[in-house]
Amino acid sequence: MAYFNNISKVTYEGANSTNPFAFKYYNPEEMINGRRMEEFMRFAVSYWHTFTGEGTDPFGQATMVRPYNNFSGVDLAKARVEASFEFFEKLDVPFFCFHDYDISPETESLSETFKNIDTIVAMIKDYMKTSKTKLLWNTANMFSHPRWLHGAATAPNADVYAYAAAKVKKGLEVGKELGSENYVFWGGREGYETLLNTNMKLELDNLARFFHMAKDYANEIGFDAQFLIEPKPKEPTKHQYDFDVATGMAFLQQYGLQDVFKFNIEANHATLAGHTFEHELHVARINGMLGSVDANQGDPLLGWDTDEFPTDLYSTTLAMYEIIKNDGLGTGGLNFDAKVRRGSFDPEDLFHAHIAGMDAFAIGTKIAQRLLEDKVLEDFIADRYSSFTSGIGLEIVEGKANFHALEKHALGLGEISNKSGRQEYLKSILNKYILEAVK
Amino acid sequence: MAYFNNISKVTYEGANSTNPFAFKYYNPEEMINGRRMEEFMRFAVSYWHTFTGEGTDPFGQATMVRPYNNFSGVDLAKARVEASFEFFEKLDVPFFCFHDYDISPETESLSETFKNIDTIVAMIKDYMKTSKTKLLWNTANMFSHPRWLHGAATAPNADVYAYAAAKVKKGLEVGKELGSENYVFWGGREGYETLLNTNMKLELDNLARFFHMAKDYANEIGFDAQFLIEPKPKEPTKHQYDFDVATGMAFLQQYGLQDVFKFNIEANHATLAGHTFEHELHVARINGMLGSVDANQGDPLLGWDTDEFPTDLYSTTLAMYEIIKNDGLGTGGLNFDAKVRRGSFDPEDLFHAHIAGMDAFAIGTKIAQRLLEDKVLEDFIADRYSSFTSGIGLEIVEGKANFHALEKHALGLGEISNKSGRQEYLKSILNKYILEAVK
Amino acid sequence: MAYFNNISKVTYEGANSTNPFAFKYYNPEEMINGRRMEEFMRFAVSYWHTFTGEGTDPFGQATMVRPYNNFSGVDLAKARVEASFEFFEKLDVPFFCFHDYDISPETESLSETFKNIDTIVAMIKDYMKTSKTKLLWNTANMFSHPRWLHGAATAPNADVYAYAAAKVKKGLEVGKELGSENYVFWGGREGYETLLNTNMKLELDNLARFFHMAKDYANEIGFDAQFLIEPKPKEPTKHQYDFDVATGMAFLQQYGLQDVFKFNIEANHATLAGHTFEHELHVARINGMLGSVDANQGDPLLGWDTDEFPTDLYSTTLAMYEIIKNDGLGTGGLNFDAKVRRGSFDPEDLFHAHIAGMDAFAIGTKIAQRLLEDKVLEDFIADRYSSFTSGIGLEIVEGKANFHALEKHALGLGEISNKSGRQEYLKSILNKYILEAVK
Amino acid sequence: MAYFNNISKVTYEGANSTNPFAFKYYNPEEMINGRRMEEFMRFAVSYWHTFTGEGTDPFGQATMVRPYNNFSGVDLAKARVEASFEFFEKLDVPFFCFHDYDISPETESLSETFKNIDTIVAMIKDYMKTSKTKLLWNTANMFSHPRWLHGAATAPNADVYAYAAAKVKKGLEVGKELGSENYVFWGGREGYETLLNTNMKLELDNLARFFHMAKDYANEIGFDAQFLIEPKPKEPTKHQYDFDVATGMAFLQQYGLQDVFKFNIEANHATLAGHTFEHELHVARINGMLGSVDANQGDPLLGWDTDEFPTDLYSTTLAMYEIIKNDGLGTGGLNFDAKVRRGSFDPEDLFHAHIAGMDAFAIGTKIAQRLLEDKVLEDFIADRYSSFTSGIGLEIVEGKANFHALEKHALGLGEISNKSGRQEYLKSILNKYILEAVK
Repeated sequence: MAYFNNISKVTYEGANSTNPFAFKYYNPEEMINGRRMEEFMRFAVSYWHTFTGEGTDPFGQATMVRPYNNFSGVDLAKARVEASFEFFEKLDVPFFCFHDYDISPETESLSETFKNIDTIVAMIKDYMKTSKTKLLWNTANMFSHPRWLHGAATAPNADVYAYAAAKVKKGLEVGKELGSENYVFWGGREGYETLLNTNMKLELDNLARFFHMAKDYANEIGFDAQFLIEPKPKEPTKHQYDFDVATGMAFLQQYGLQDVFKFNIEANHATLAGHTFEHELHVARINGMLGSVDANQGDPLLGWDTDEFPTDLYSTTLAMYEIIKNDGLGTGGLNFDAKVRRGSFDPEDLFHAHIAGMDAFAIGTKIAQRLLEDKVLEDFIADRYSSFTSGIGLEIVEGKANFHALEKHALGLGEISNKSGRQEYLKSILNKYILEAVK
Repeated sequence: MAYFNNISKVTYEGANSTNPFAFKYYNPEEMINGRRMEEFMRFAVSYWHTFTGEGTDPFGQATMVRPYNNFSGVDLAKARVEASFEFFEKLDVPFFCFHDYDISPETESLSETFKNIDTIVAMIKDYMKTSKTKLLWNTANMFSHPRWLHGAATAPNADVYAYAAAKVKKGLEVGKELGSENYVFWGGREGYETLLNTNMKLELDNLARFFHMAKDYANEIGFDAQFLIEPKPKEPTKHQYDFDVATGMAFLQQYGLQDVFKFNIEANHATLAGHTFEHELHVARINGMLGSVDANQGDPLLGWDTDEFPTDLYSTTLAMYEIIKNDGLGTGGLNFDAKVRRGSFDPEDLFHAHIAGMDAFAIGTKIAQRLLEDKVLEDFIADRYSSFTSGIGLEIVEGKANFHALEKHALGLGEISNKSGRQEYLKSILNKYILEAVK
Repeated sequence: MAYFNNISKVTYEGANSTNPFAFKYYNPEEMINGRRMEEFMRFAVSYWHTFTGEGTDPFGQATMVRPYNNFSGVDLAKARVEASFEFFEKLDVPFFCFHDYDISPETESLSETFKNIDTIVAMIKDYMKTSKTKLLWNTANMFSHPRWLHGAATAPNADVYAYAAAKVKKGLEVGKELGSENYVFWGGREGYETLLNTNMKLELDNLARFFHMAKDYANEIGFDAQFLIEPKPKEPTKHQYDFDVATGMAFLQQYGLQDVFKFNIEANHATLAGHTFEHELHVARINGMLGSVDANQGDPLLGWDTDEFPTDLYSTTLAMYEIIKNDGLGTGGLNFDAKVRRGSFDPEDLFHAHIAGMDAFAIGTKIAQRLLEDKVLEDFIADRYSSFTSGIGLEIVEGKANFHALEKHALGLGEISNKSGRQEYLKSILNKYILEAVK
Repeated sequence: MAYFNNISKVTYEGANSTNPFAFKYYNPEEMINGRRMEEFMRFAVSYWHTFTGEGTDPFGQATMVRPYNNFSGVDLAKARVEASFEFFEKLDVPFFCFHDYDISPETESLSETFKNIDTIVAMIKDYMKTSKTKLLWNTANMFSHPRWLHGAATAPNADVYAYAAAKVKKGLEVGKELGSENYVFWGGREGYETLLNTNMKLELDNLARFFHMAKDYANEIGFDAQFLIEPKPKEPTKHQYDFDVATGMAFLQQYGLQDVFKFNIEANHATLAGHTFEHELHVARINGMLGSVDANQGDPLLGWDTDEFPTDLYSTTLAMYEIIKNDGLGTGGLNFDAKVRRGSFDPEDLFHAHIAGMDAFAIGTKIAQRLLEDKVLEDFIADRYSSFTSGIGLEIVEGKANFHALEKHALGLGEISNKSGRQEYLKSILNKYILEAVK
């Protein structure tokens, strides 16, 4: 059975194409940084937004018209698997991602829930045999069911904690079964609503214990996927412990977990934390912690996670700049953790949105690659910091200076001469590279 | 010479007093937590806002009417010292804080600047002999002069870095000379305006080197003040490296500085970072890093550092709750890093504002102390997490659990029973304690 | 049948009461401004949050434990009516409010939906005969069903517009049937997601036409309730046309509707628009447009509508200050458009929350009344603007001045003498009034 | 004397030019919408940011290196005039804008201040005789001097009000003398710091009186420039009365001023008010109130007015889309109310920044023009709202419908069919137009 009959396989047709269901800029075969774009950019489809999401919002019911809307229960789960692999194939994406809960709904019985997961996982595994699309990462949904209302691995309730452990144990097994390249922890309820009723210290200690146990179990079963923390500062809770990359790094170091995890960085989570997307990528990169990316965008004037498909070329360019400097994402990828707007309810919109996102990242990649090849920013920066390559600057960098030597140097200085930071000029250069991207 | 002739020494007169220049709630002699309030609360006056500040804003000129406005240069600096000790005495505050630049303006010659500092420091030291007011902390202003426009210890210019070192070296000497209990680092320009021209890794490495050198020098001269980092996420720069406590902790751990520093936490900086004041205090406290406090408040609807005098009783209560749980601030204190509004330009307003802040913190202290004595929140929290004191919960906390045991436990559970978080009830209790504070 | 068996009727027991289900500060019999508190404050329960709301959030399922959870369909609707009147009676509130959709769920057939509404309305009317609780306002939900995904009275689809008209027509009839004192328009989907696909001018023209038709129909059936617009700047849409009071006033004047509407002002909507609650009340008041109030509060650090129960005494005081200056709300009231937190899922929490809110407003009322009786702010303000009561100031106010006269006056001035705004002092006075509220 | 010796006249050299001081995209001779770009786009240089601005910020001193920095007093004012006309000529801009205070500093004597203004205005007039650069608008600075600390035309002090009138009177005379095409009112201090000390009603009444008197005087002297209000929601004050366009429209209608004023819309002010730039332009346009534009941009993650040079092509495109739909700005223009970053202190940066801004707007203009020529959005929108062109929709629009007819229509409907809003698709189209802008 086909679910998206009216859409053919999406192919690259170039910028002049008037076919709305063609890639205009994303050419999987094009070489970027010595690798085929497809191989380098590692796009993934988010199962939850694309197949499970229904278009609800805090004030509105489901709107999404989906070809499997007439199914329910496990039948619905199966229909979604069928539809998803058709979608992956038509969109030609190398990866997908899911929460346990997306592929198979929870029942009141945990063992029954596990059995249903097994059924669907077997079906997915079967599909994967003949599909090029692989599993970028899986995770456990520990935020939707009312059981998690006060947290999962940071719950004030040991039963809930145990339940969370069982779910992640299963998730690790599923990840191994499906050959997942990463395993993600997003702590949507790991935080607090009010300090008035919270023991933060115990919650954080418990969270660290949980992560250690998870790693132990992954080792035990020989599941060597990269573990990823996905920071988000707030929403749904008032404060989430994995606020941003820096907060995550503080936690990981404190609990001896810094070698176990990298970060899965989401654009909209970055901006909710008061950072640009590229800031979070940069901080992770220079610390060797850049694992994977949730490629979306927020609305800078809205204070919640809008999870829009990424179309801002400034953002895709500066994100890819960091990723290329990182020599790619390793086992990670660019997961479209993005949902079509509630008013974009047609199946066609799913294609429009993914094409828009893939094209935007393809363009961003080309621009970033050219900026790097031309060493536009790198040369500017090297020159800007050149005083640290000789004399007192070199002594500082080499750890040979102390306050006596520095004071002596300072007292001997005449007027200090700084150089302009040239921000406006650099921004005009960036515009030039964007405008010349497809020439 | 007297500068504030029309104001007598401010004393506690109780809530019924109609004297606007009396404390209504702050009674230095009252006992809190076994110590006299005065001793426990350790208020400090900020030299910069109170004596150097002129009421400028980004769109407006100086407005402050000050009794020393007719002086200039070193004479002005001296007059401010005289006025400040009169102010301290009239307000009966135990501490003050300053940047080098507040007490003595910089000249184009660093050695001349140092000489002027020496003059003023000698004068201050002299005043301190007969004053009860001590130096809570001092610091170096490395953000106002154009030399710092790209940073100080993170500047792209080694000369600037050396100059910063010389200033901090002097600051440490001044701190020792005046018996300062802490030394503060606020990195107002330690950050970036745009990533397009920034080498963040080098800047952070250099910052860590700077801190190590500073500590080495303090050790060398036997200055054992507590070192404090004061986080602020942004303003004046687009991004500041000491974003918040968690970010600071990541940095300190990474560079082996976690035992050298604690945090000086400012309310308005917390809210600019997206946190409540009490959140930042709490995070620092449970990590043993709560050093001192910049007691002010922001306007939640404004996106810049308004540095208002603290009058919100919810905020002072919840802040003091953390501080009392921390058994006080050790060598730290409650520094009014707060400025009278630009339209509150009379010298009288300086008294009104400090009295308002001291009264608000006194009330907050009483309320927090009663909440703790009655174990209102602590009992609620203990009960809420009680499942971790026996059975599987205790095994988790004691590190005896693993994913096998937890899964087994979870599979054996029936429906999980969570308890209400009772947020609304706890907030009504808080109101009750506020309303009964002065009964 | 009783739904809240374990809670007795809530009565005033005073501040010393340890009964968590008693009013500590709200005494219905106490006189405020010449009227019994109960009569003056006109509290209302929101049907949607309290009886229909289930505790979902964008990442989580229903959590609320309600005594009618085992019912469904019209039976559920009936059970909720029974429970609601028991709740009103136990809480002793004079008013309630609802959307059509809260009391009776929509079906696919509009005429069937209307029939169901009639059934429930008849039942409610019957209950109202023996209840003291009256209907403050009703409204039509034109945002939840997918039909409204692009708007209702501003939809790009004339069928949707007509459907909206039919719903409001029915709402007006229901309002008349139940003796509602007001009729509210909240345009949750009246706005846009992106200007790229929007004809704003046509949408606004259509909205105005809709309002005129609504008023015509109300007149036709003799329903003389006050029409109220409830401004909200965003959420669920990216931009809502009724952004704030000022925006509403621009619209109403432009379309000749300024005499037809007043405003229903919600605290959390005010802060989302960048205003304080009291600002919005003040703007409406001085323009004679203050109609009613949605009494809740937001979290200043979160960018969405948290709809918390109002407990902030600063906010309740300053809100009641405006309301008392307005000589009350006329036909309006204080509707708790507030929901218990998702983790406060017990029926008891509904009582805790309403008690917290009613106590907070009672205290706010007492404080505001005393501030007004003592003319604390009014005298300060009168003095501050006194220059407009004589001389050139009076000429200005009386419209007798022109630029020639004013220039002449200005050229004759020496240095202009301004007076301090005394903000810090006024804030300390406010604290004093809060702290003495229950003495 | 030449001030910018090292920069030659900036000319259009095309996208391939490697000259950083050439226009790459702005070609004054190119035709847009039937007019030469130069004529259509009407760029203006802001005197304050470009010639008077010194690079101070709330935490830092002046940084700008300017060729006239060695002058002071009236000599400095004269040198700036000379430099400004050299700058205008080299940049080939058709307009400039100033506050009285920018061109000539205030003295303690108002008559002396006026005399100085006369001197500089005469000098400017002389320069204008041989320059192509004209005055887009002038205004009076009524926010910098301490006299304005509580407001100007909304001050609580009648003397201040009179002083403001004298300044505006002079400003109108200067505008007439120099042939200004508009006169701007930005109320930087017209608002409040706290409602606790504010009589908002009197302040707004006085503001309206002031505007009427200003118009009367302009009529009296035959100065027929367009009057413009420039909305800004906050900063420097906590709340400014001209919050946004809608708020301004409410005020103007209320006081019978709607035919006297249009709006001068600034991008960064729009975003501070929670709106996009294009939203504010759109609202003004559809109401016939779009007067002029302050072309800059803010940082979406910073809560203050950063006044950056406009480089975001999405913003310039969507702004020009509104402006072209408005058939240009009439007497208005695109004023770069933008400042080089504090760290971009070289005179060269002034050229880089203006070139960046002019190129960004030129590109935006081309893209917008093509979008309009291709009717990309207009056709989509026409189709989307087509139900209002016949049947019940047409009846609605023509005012022939009422609630009876609409209900009847609604009851006769089967399931309502909405169409997707296609937001993601439209965004990808926008990207395509941007990427093809310079092909």
